[in-house]
Amino acid sequence: MASYARLVRFVPKSGGAPLIGEPVDSAVDVGLASFEGKPIEVNVFSGSSVINPGEKTGKTATVERLLSPLAQAEVGTIRCIGLNYRSHAEEVNMPVPSVPTVFMKPAQALADPYPAPTVIPRVFVKDDAADYESELVLVIGKDAKDVPEADALDYLAGYTACNDVSSRVQQFATTQWTFSKSFDGACPIGPAFVSKDAVKDFGKLAIKGIHNGNVVQESTMDDLIFSVPKIISFLSQGSTLPAGTIIITGTPAGVGWGKNPKSLLRDGDDFRVSITGGIGTLINKIVEEK
Amino acid sequence: MASYARLVRFVPKSGGAPLIGEPVDSAVDVGLASFEGKPIEVNVFSGSSVINPGEKTGKTATVERLLSPLAQAEVGTIRCIGLNYRSHAEEVNMPVPSVPTVFMKPAQALADPYPAPTVIPRVFVKDDAADYESELVLVIGKDAKDVPEADALDYLAGYTACNDVSSRVQQFATTQWTFSKSFDGACPIGPAFVSKDAVKDFGKLAIKGIHNGNVVQESTMDDLIFSVPKIISFLSQGSTLPAGTIIITGTPAGVGWGKNPKSLLRDGDDFRVSITGGIGTLINKIVEEK
Repeated sequence: MASYARLVRFVPKSGGAPLIGEPVDSAVDVGLASFEGKPIEVNVFSGSSVINPGEKTGKTATVERLLSPLAQAEVGTIRCIGLNYRSHAEEVNMPVPSVPTVFMKPAQALADPYPAPTVIPRVFVKDDAADYESELVLVIGKDAKDVPEADALDYLAGYTACNDVSSRVQQFATTQWTFSKSFDGACPIGPAFVSKDAVKDFGKLAIKGIHNGNVVQESTMDDLIFSVPKIISFLSQGSTLPAGTIIITGTPAGVGWGKNPKSLLRDGDDFRVSITGGIGTLINKIVEEK
Repeated sequence: MASYARLVRFVPKSGGAPLIGEPVDSAVDVGLASFEGKPIEVNVFSGSSVINPGEKTGKTATVERLLSPLAQAEVGTIRCIGLNYRSHAEEVNMPVPSVPTVFMKPAQALADPYPAPTVIPRVFVKDDAADYESELVLVIGKDAKDVPEADALDYLAGYTACNDVSSRVQQFATTQWTFSKSFDGACPIGPAFVSKDAVKDFGKLAIKGIHNGNVVQESTMDDLIFSVPKIISFLSQGSTLPAGTIIITGTPAGVGWGKNPKSLLRDGDDFRVSITGGIGTLINKIVEEK
């Protein structure tokens, strides 16, 4: 397999099926460049998946539209960890947990970066409680089951970013969170997939949530309660995590529901999740369904 | 499409790929017959899915092994309703809910009827808290999104049975239930898929859970808190339920964790979920992973 630091999945300007490849400019934030309408040149790979990208074809293509780095069909059920930053546990007055809190989203929640919008369904618009959660995403590279922590990184392909879009009224209407976080498009991911080997100091990866230009969440992976190996090992107990599974890893302090006054997602808003290490800025405009 | 009352998916004695068809004997409980080693003759259909069965081929086949009526790939993420029988809400001292409690299982939880076992993973064996939940399963026949209650039955293909296998210590270790109910094989379904049109009086459908020969759960669909149209309509709000989605609808009173003394699933146990109307008896032996 060819070596690469990061990959994008995209519709090329030349038309046709989505392609996989590595941006020619190793420093460009592909999410920002796409949003600003700047051309992004990509060295095209032969494969159709970031976890099985094949070889460099020697051809280049220009991005017409960025796609989620993985497609719905390869992602399957999305595994989600709640309460995984010390700062967020303090913000919501919860003790630091000793067991990971797990919930799930269906594959249909997966969505693309800008220009794909985040559409808040009518059922949640009426609650006026749609909120953001900026998160690091783990991408599983080969089927994992009963994986010890010591071996867990062997099953990790790399990283991307997501917004775990949630509707707080529904989240707390029953004991179970999943329905409030599972609607179509409630999990945009991207813009780039970064190989685990390209991340030299994981703890220093920095994440920001940016709401209409204001930095509302800001942390580093040093603040994670459960480490990446712990999360993969825990979720794989008795459970197959097929290659392509994504795990979203919890959000740092600063969600809109916890602010005074509350700062929620409304029609026309711009929300961005930005992660260093080449992952870049995931941008989605908010649309309230009429 | 050919008319039928119920269908099974099975490996034929003649070998080859799984087949779909209607049992020749319209009265046989295919789960019991399979368990007792009695031959089951099936009128084979041309399709490969119970939601798209095609036409009668005019051929018959004998069942070598019953399979889950739907395959993992067509089911996708399994939608689950908790606390949906008045008797069970009373049993656990919960008020009758006004909003459905929703959780999910990944497709990998789907499992076949006997001779497939229900394997309790080591992580849950050590807790000695594996429990049964006998449930009716709804099978969605065409993509559903934002479906009003009045139209919801148009999207329902039919019914089968499941055991929502759960590990109670993990279920209550955090606020979120899903990890305790999501291991590989935690959702056996079957034995037969029954068309909604073949069920003449839904409220009188009777469900039993039978643990080592003792009836431990017994109810009818008249005891459901949320009706079938309400469940489909609720879950489809903002969310696409693709054709093939299954919805498990909650369990009646009598779970093992609620008994005094507790009555849990242990190595070698026999658990059966029996539903009238032709669905039949879903049987699985319990195996504790060593």
